[in-house]
Amino acid sequence: MAVNFNGKHLEKFISEYEYTALYPQVELAHKLLESKTGPGNDFLGWMNLPETYDKEEFARIKAAAEKIRNDSDVLLVAGIGGSYLGARAVIEACEGVYHNELANGPKIYFCGNSISPSALNDIIALTKGKRFSINVISKSGTTTETALAFRVLRKLLVDAVGEQEADSRIYATTDRAKGTLKQLADSRGWPTFVVPDDVGGRYSVLTAVGLLPIAVAGIDIDKLMQGAADGMKLFGECSMENPAYKYAMTRTILYRKGKKVETLACFEPDFAMMSEWFKQLYGESEGKDQKGLMPTSCIFSTDLHSMGQYLQDGSRIMFETFVDVKQPAKDLYLEELEGNFDGLNFLSGQNMSVVNRKAMEGTILAHTDGGVPVGLIEVDALDAYNMGLLIYFFWKGCAVSGYMLGVNPFDQPGVESYKKNMFALMGKPGYEGMKAELEAKLK
Amino acid sequence: MAVNFNGKHLEKFISEYEYTALYPQVELAHKLLESKTGPGNDFLGWMNLPETYDKEEFARIKAAAEKIRNDSDVLLVAGIGGSYLGARAVIEACEGVYHNELANGPKIYFCGNSISPSALNDIIALTKGKRFSINVISKSGTTTETALAFRVLRKLLVDAVGEQEADSRIYATTDRAKGTLKQLADSRGWPTFVVPDDVGGRYSVLTAVGLLPIAVAGIDIDKLMQGAADGMKLFGECSMENPAYKYAMTRTILYRKGKKVETLACFEPDFAMMSEWFKQLYGESEGKDQKGLMPTSCIFSTDLHSMGQYLQDGSRIMFETFVDVKQPAKDLYLEELEGNFDGLNFLSGQNMSVVNRKAMEGTILAHTDGGVPVGLIEVDALDAYNMGLLIYFFWKGCAVSGYMLGVNPFDQPGVESYKKNMFALMGKPGYEGMKAELEAKLK
Repeated sequence: MAVNFNGKHLEKFISEYEYTALYPQVELAHKLLESKTGPGNDFLGWMNLPETYDKEEFARIKAAAEKIRNDSDVLLVAGIGGSYLGARAVIEACEGVYHNELANGPKIYFCGNSISPSALNDIIALTKGKRFSINVISKSGTTTETALAFRVLRKLLVDAVGEQEADSRIYATTDRAKGTLKQLADSRGWPTFVVPDDVGGRYSVLTAVGLLPIAVAGIDIDKLMQGAADGMKLFGECSMENPAYKYAMTRTILYRKGKKVETLACFEPDFAMMSEWFKQLYGESEGKDQKGLMPTSCIFSTDLHSMGQYLQDGSRIMFETFVDVKQPAKDLYLEELEGNFDGLNFLSGQNMSVVNRKAMEGTILAHTDGGVPVGLIEVDALDAYNMGLLIYFFWKGCAVSGYMLGVNPFDQPGVESYKKNMFALMGKPGYEGMKAELEAKLK
Repeated sequence: MAVNFNGKHLEKFISEYEYTALYPQVELAHKLLESKTGPGNDFLGWMNLPETYDKEEFARIKAAAEKIRNDSDVLLVAGIGGSYLGARAVIEACEGVYHNELANGPKIYFCGNSISPSALNDIIALTKGKRFSINVISKSGTTTETALAFRVLRKLLVDAVGEQEADSRIYATTDRAKGTLKQLADSRGWPTFVVPDDVGGRYSVLTAVGLLPIAVAGIDIDKLMQGAADGMKLFGECSMENPAYKYAMTRTILYRKGKKVETLACFEPDFAMMSEWFKQLYGESEGKDQKGLMPTSCIFSTDLHSMGQYLQDGSRIMFETFVDVKQPAKDLYLEELEGNFDGLNFLSGQNMSVVNRKAMEGTILAHTDGGVPVGLIEVDALDAYNMGLLIYFFWKGCAVSGYMLGVNPFDQPGVESYKKNMFALMGKPGYEGMKAELEAKLK
């Protein structure tokens, strides 16, 4: 199996009967999902997406990516949250964190995901003297961070190449029919791609939202979708052995025993953004009604030299989920060193990946000895096919976890709170009533 | 004041008398520090470092940096933990996350901080056709991650430019007198810089460990040290008003009320690595004896669209510390948009930094309404002088926090656990006894 959940190091923390006792709740959650009768059931488009996705649009995405690869040195991807994390995560997992410096094809910069003028000025500087295109991603077109950046970057493009050429270099991923961005795109003749109504932002990586930037990075999106389609089957059956459900049960059991934090850890630095994507998926799905595990992440062994002390011996509030990547993208043979100055010749004569694996095993044993439950998500490699599988694994695990927790795993009402305050403080028309009240609180 | 702690949004979470009641413990911690009689008192070299640092070495660091800037396209910095995070944090805060693509001067890549062969292969690829130098940082010279990378990269350099030229391009930051790296460096004639005996890794950013890479990035290390020296005074007095002590008290009070997690948040993406540095400093100092706050971090508003839901309405286990940067590195004036397609013209006619600030204020009000205490660390700007101040602020706050928690804030015994297991599993001479036992556990 290309993605599996391995619970062998959990034995001293969770008894087998705990899984058996919890399993009926999994069945219930599974039924709610399959029958589409649970909370948030208008956002279940992700479930069959790997089979039912729009093939015509998929072909258009590939064609657009090819055009961008041919006519652009730089692609600016403007989007925030789910319109940012999924694409970046898959690109870095498959192509590495240095893909912009090492890969052929356009450099891909993500922007429109903050309101920092320093960040936006850097993006502007990065386009200097370059042929660039823009993929703006926003269902409504009015997402503050993205729309502000897009205003500025579109003007930059028009100033550089003229209005007509600019119109051929802007790609809008937005609502199918309504919204200001769709309207503007149609009036300008920009190619548009769809953010489906029944797929929430954090589940959107396998729609045009994620697929266009991923394809521009030169990643095989057919393989990505094939992985997800195989994931639909692998993680589709309701059984104790379904790896996604085993994972959902594990985290639910540990949460109910008092663990407050889940730390997703991986020994491959290229996985860092996948962990950020995971944090949105789980944090936004479960963090509501004053409940839910707090998702955090580490890259090991790097962070064993920063968070390692805490994980080993700090407050016992967390468990860890290790993403165990079986094959590195590129291995490296360790040669004998003449003189053995660093005393590490006992490691030579083998591949570095073997040493990395021993470090992982040593960490598992150290942390479990320290009282931290460790579960393993095993994945063959960080490539397009396996990322498709892994994405579906996390989706399914999250939906079932959320239903077991008793929340609507598909809404995010809390995200609006800061926005409302921000709009009021900024003087947005319609928010006048709140403004004075909030300003008084800030005194 | 260029760095301050502002507790105005904490009023509904902490009463003034709680600070008064806790203050005697601050006095005690302060005395332990000043008299150097507390636990870990052989690691207090950081306290006077901004005044007592080795001026001769400082001049050598500047000269070496100048040489590297003149003769190298790339500097590889091999180090892990404190020998990695501080330098990268200051460089990205001052020069931006895109410094390698935007700044003049050598590109700086950090390596030797993981055992991933994919990561090391990428570093090798990044040196291709480039004139590069290496700064290897390890007190002992036997740190696995760093030593393994250094073996490979040194050979790469020798193969590229020959042994003699390679010897003029390797800079070793290591023990003053002993250890394998010092020995090798002396035998090869490499310039060496000192990791002082009385400064722990997580306090080492203002020694040669951090200063050489920071200077190579073109950052004014005189200003950095001046900031820290001013910090020594600003945060030196024992008083209720000392900002570092106010911060230490705040987090101690909230921890004792049941908060388990501190989230350091900043609205500037360039601060992300400073947060990683903070996580090591606080996590490694306090996370022991099954105690301590778990440090986490966010970049806003980016992560308001991922972790925002959880922070607003998930389990109420955290408080937040916002790093409030008063002046952005580069501002951007928002122009009116003809047609107002995105409905954001109410934001135009002002600088983007004003909007970013409203977003911060809106977030503070939303999160405090949601039951999350928010403290503010105010800092004038992300520049060398202010990073010096901020570093000293965090150091002092951490030492006092740690003593109030009742731990030795200057050791990290838990970091050894995974290493011992790793060595045993790898078959390191001397660990034979453990090997079979651990392997049995892995079955």
